[in-house]
Amino acid sequence: MSSSSSIDQPNVITCKAMVAWEAGKDLVMEEVEVSPPQPLEIRVKVICTSLCRTDITAWESQAIFPRIFGHEASGIVESVGEGVTEFVKGDHVLTVFTGECKTCKHCESKKSNMCQVLGLERRGVMHSDQGTRFSVKGKPVYHYCAVSSFSEYTVVHSGCAVKVSPQAPLEKICLLSCGVAAGLGAAWNVADISKGSIVVIFGLGTVGLAVAQGAKLRGASQIIGVDINPEKYEKAKCFGVTDFLNPNEYNEPIQQVIKRISGGGTDYSFECIGNTGMVTTALQSCCDGWGLTVMLGVPKTNPEIASHYSAFLSGKTLKGSLFGGWKPKSDLPSLVNKYMNREIQVDEFITHNLPFEDINKAFTLMREGKCLRCVIHMPN
Amino acid sequence: MSSSSSIDQPNVITCKAMVAWEAGKDLVMEEVEVSPPQPLEIRVKVICTSLCRTDITAWESQAIFPRIFGHEASGIVESVGEGVTEFVKGDHVLTVFTGECKTCKHCESKKSNMCQVLGLERRGVMHSDQGTRFSVKGKPVYHYCAVSSFSEYTVVHSGCAVKVSPQAPLEKICLLSCGVAAGLGAAWNVADISKGSIVVIFGLGTVGLAVAQGAKLRGASQIIGVDINPEKYEKAKCFGVTDFLNPNEYNEPIQQVIKRISGGGTDYSFECIGNTGMVTTALQSCCDGWGLTVMLGVPKTNPEIASHYSAFLSGKTLKGSLFGGWKPKSDLPSLVNKYMNREIQVDEFITHNLPFEDINKAFTLMREGKCLRCVIHMPN
Repeated sequence: MSSSSSIDQPNVITCKAMVAWEAGKDLVMEEVEVSPPQPLEIRVKVICTSLCRTDITAWESQAIFPRIFGHEASGIVESVGEGVTEFVKGDHVLTVFTGECKTCKHCESKKSNMCQVLGLERRGVMHSDQGTRFSVKGKPVYHYCAVSSFSEYTVVHSGCAVKVSPQAPLEKICLLSCGVAAGLGAAWNVADISKGSIVVIFGLGTVGLAVAQGAKLRGASQIIGVDINPEKYEKAKCFGVTDFLNPNEYNEPIQQVIKRISGGGTDYSFECIGNTGMVTTALQSCCDGWGLTVMLGVPKTNPEIASHYSAFLSGKTLKGSLFGGWKPKSDLPSLVNKYMNREIQVDEFITHNLPFEDINKAFTLMREGKCLRCVIHMPN
Repeated sequence: MSSSSSIDQPNVITCKAMVAWEAGKDLVMEEVEVSPPQPLEIRVKVICTSLCRTDITAWESQAIFPRIFGHEASGIVESVGEGVTEFVKGDHVLTVFTGECKTCKHCESKKSNMCQVLGLERRGVMHSDQGTRFSVKGKPVYHYCAVSSFSEYTVVHSGCAVKVSPQAPLEKICLLSCGVAAGLGAAWNVADISKGSIVVIFGLGTVGLAVAQGAKLRGASQIIGVDINPEKYEKAKCFGVTDFLNPNEYNEPIQQVIKRISGGGTDYSFECIGNTGMVTTALQSCCDGWGLTVMLGVPKTNPEIASHYSAFLSGKTLKGSLFGGWKPKSDLPSLVNKYMNREIQVDEFITHNLPFEDINKAFTLMREGKCLRCVIHMPN
């Protein structure tokens, strides 16, 4: 990295970033210019970034290129833009794909984490001026999910970063900036799982297993994990999964099996795959009267959920969960503390550690279902 | 009516009933034989029965004929079957389409009113022996919704009747055995509407207006009523509707209008029409973060609900409401008391009173959208 300006006046940084030039094509290491933070923005030296399935879904399908992906990350504040009072250079932060402005109706409500100012709408550009802070040879490179952490340095809105304890290991807690927090929050905040209940989880990736962990910590009596990859089972046990079902091993619809082994349907079902058809299966798997289906996955294809009205008239509920209902600034620091106090498991989700230049290997591992979380370590 | 046996030993009663011989064809007054109540059943002299939209939907579409419709009713116990200890001859009762056995997992849970023994499954026949208690000239006539109140006498399972105060006027409180209770319960039990909130209701029939009443009593600040029949508005005001929207008067989707007048979407939306497409509209009408859509209607056609996953990921919830979440035996007596104490309006839903022989007029009035509730008075 080289800075073309004095310390007091942040200026353009030239550094390495992994740029996606085309959908589904290997990322390419490029020299990228990172603009100084504009008002209310901060520039962050990324320390670690872990690959999340949503990065892959967007890289495979979305139309905005060239782009720098990556949104589950930890780093250290390098400089701050005008008007930023919450952060100073050197602060340890987690970046978050959904922000918290602390002033909108949703931020002020206890019932929502859907910040209306820094929510999901603006993904490719910065909030303040709809521009980018990255360029390669003068050509703008788009942001992703307000974070773009596959770069040594990135610029984020100060509302999309959370200050954390400098004692917390950044190479681990990066997982709390998206997947693990999303799963725990779905179990605790959105479903509010009660002791002794029966839970089924569709999809045993990081998010699904974080739901399992959340269910276990709430004292669920049975946690059924559904995945077509039998290799998931051993790891799933560590997070509390008591029964593993591979739909390919049954000649009947998996919801029938689930109803049978749960004595009539589960209390909660979680869709963590991102398959709208599986949302229907999840609804059918939970019990009448109070069965709650929580959907966490972002569908890769068909965005329409279809379900028979009778599922609802028999007392079921369908609810979505975005980032597990957490308000990032208000809630993540305490989740980091829970990790520091060994109340929650995070390290166990990390199956691989890779240097930045090997990021394409992480993509391959995740697409092949060989990993939970690959942590990408940036160069010092 | 003539009884062919002594008082102590109940026997077959021959009385008048309005029999549906074919889908969509006028009911025909017949001499019907009503068997004595079998074990755990009671025979009820129907006093009043009000026509509910579900009767019409079933009469128009369902395949089981001949049949005696009617399920929203009040009456007096005429005789009881073996093992019945809860009722004696002369008790005033409301009949209910969904029972309460008081012993199943759902009856024992505070979270459900979906009795697993006397729920919605067995509609055409009696629970105990899968037979009917009605016949015309030796030919069995099927039951409907466990009640069949379009008959001077009917037989119901003792779990599908609720003892009420003999002071309560049976010609009014029959409305609490289905529609009015369903709407109030959806507002209070299922949605649990909070003070100051904004509500939209699709369909301003009895159920929709009972939701409005429930919302008003909870202190909702804005109650938007949506109906294509402009005649509904005057009546709707009495029940608390503050804004009336006729979708036919707008060139834009009605959910856009609702979002605009509610400042971004309502806190709650209720589908009371029975149109699965409208469930999608209802979901789109409520706000991100905590918007709750409650569906009460039974669809007449397309039973599949389709909705974009993003509605859920932005924090909306879809929930069904069957009989407003009330457990009939546990809860209806207190609802009757609320009526007696003038805490809830019931009389205002009654737009017509008709003698039994004019029941086909009630069908016509309801199909033409000319009534809320027609109360059918049985002969003395």
